[in-house]
Amino acid sequence: MKKIYIPILGSLFMVALLWACSPANEGKNEQEGQTTTQQVNMEKPLLRHVVLLKFKDESSAEDIKKVEQAFIALKDEISLIKDFEWGTNNSPEGLNKGLTHCFFVSFETEKDRDDYLPHPAHKAFVEVLMPHLDDVTVVDYWAK
Amino acid sequence: MKKIYIPILGSLFMVALLWACSPANEGKNEQEGQTTTQQVNMEKPLLRHVVLLKFKDESSAEDIKKVEQAFIALKDEISLIKDFEWGTNNSPEGLNKGLTHCFFVSFETEKDRDDYLPHPAHKAFVEVLMPHLDDVTVVDYWAK
Repeated sequence: MKKIYIPILGSLFMVALLWACSPANEGKNEQEGQTTTQQVNMEKPLLRHVVLLKFKDESSAEDIKKVEQAFIALKDEISLIKDFEWGTNNSPEGLNKGLTHCFFVSFETEKDRDDYLPHPAHKAFVEVLMPHLDDVTVVDYWAK
Repeated sequence: MKKIYIPILGSLFMVALLWACSPANEGKNEQEGQTTTQQVNMEKPLLRHVVLLKFKDESSAEDIKKVEQAFIALKDEISLIKDFEWGTNNSPEGLNKGLTHCFFVSFETEKDRDDYLPHPAHKAFVEVLMPHLDDVTVVDYWAK
């Protein structure tokens, strides 16, 4: 009787390890549709702040890079920002109205967005931006 | 000697179960910053297609709703679309240039975006949109 305990417990040990580490368990919280990646089902609605920029013709690539870096830095300087991405226009449609940059900033609440706008770090960024800004378009929306 | 095997294996079994199920292990693939939710680390870069719309003053709420619904329907009609969200402007900054709607469509490749534009379902949507469209701004970018 005793001789079979050891292999039984050893087998249970292996089965437990394999079960707990299986892909089925890691993937079981996948949610499709609204998301770009596989994820745990913990989505909160987010408020999107879409900022499109057009720079002056006289601003150099170096000037523009400084503005990009200053904007990117905000995601570490302002904890109200829950998500951040950006990029430069590559649309073939020619409907960008000269706007070349899109910064896509996300907040959890309207209050967070409202507090972000006058935040000292954001105001400092605006100081870097303004000398080089030709045009700007801003649209905010609750992502549906 | 034999009497200690059973409790040792039993303990190893419990430890293995607890370790494999611990929050530290479930959370170890979290990736901050670029995403809005907790997720498995399987992000692909996505191409964003940002469409901002301004409707004619004479278009009714009903007309606008039909356009919204036609756009939303595209996510099920066109498999090239990997992600889709939309919303209406609530920015307090007054920099939206009359644009009221933002549709945020994501693709995996530029070819997918290029194939989406002439897609019959997209062309049918544009037919619904055009009578009510006052202005449009489109910017596409690879999300950094």
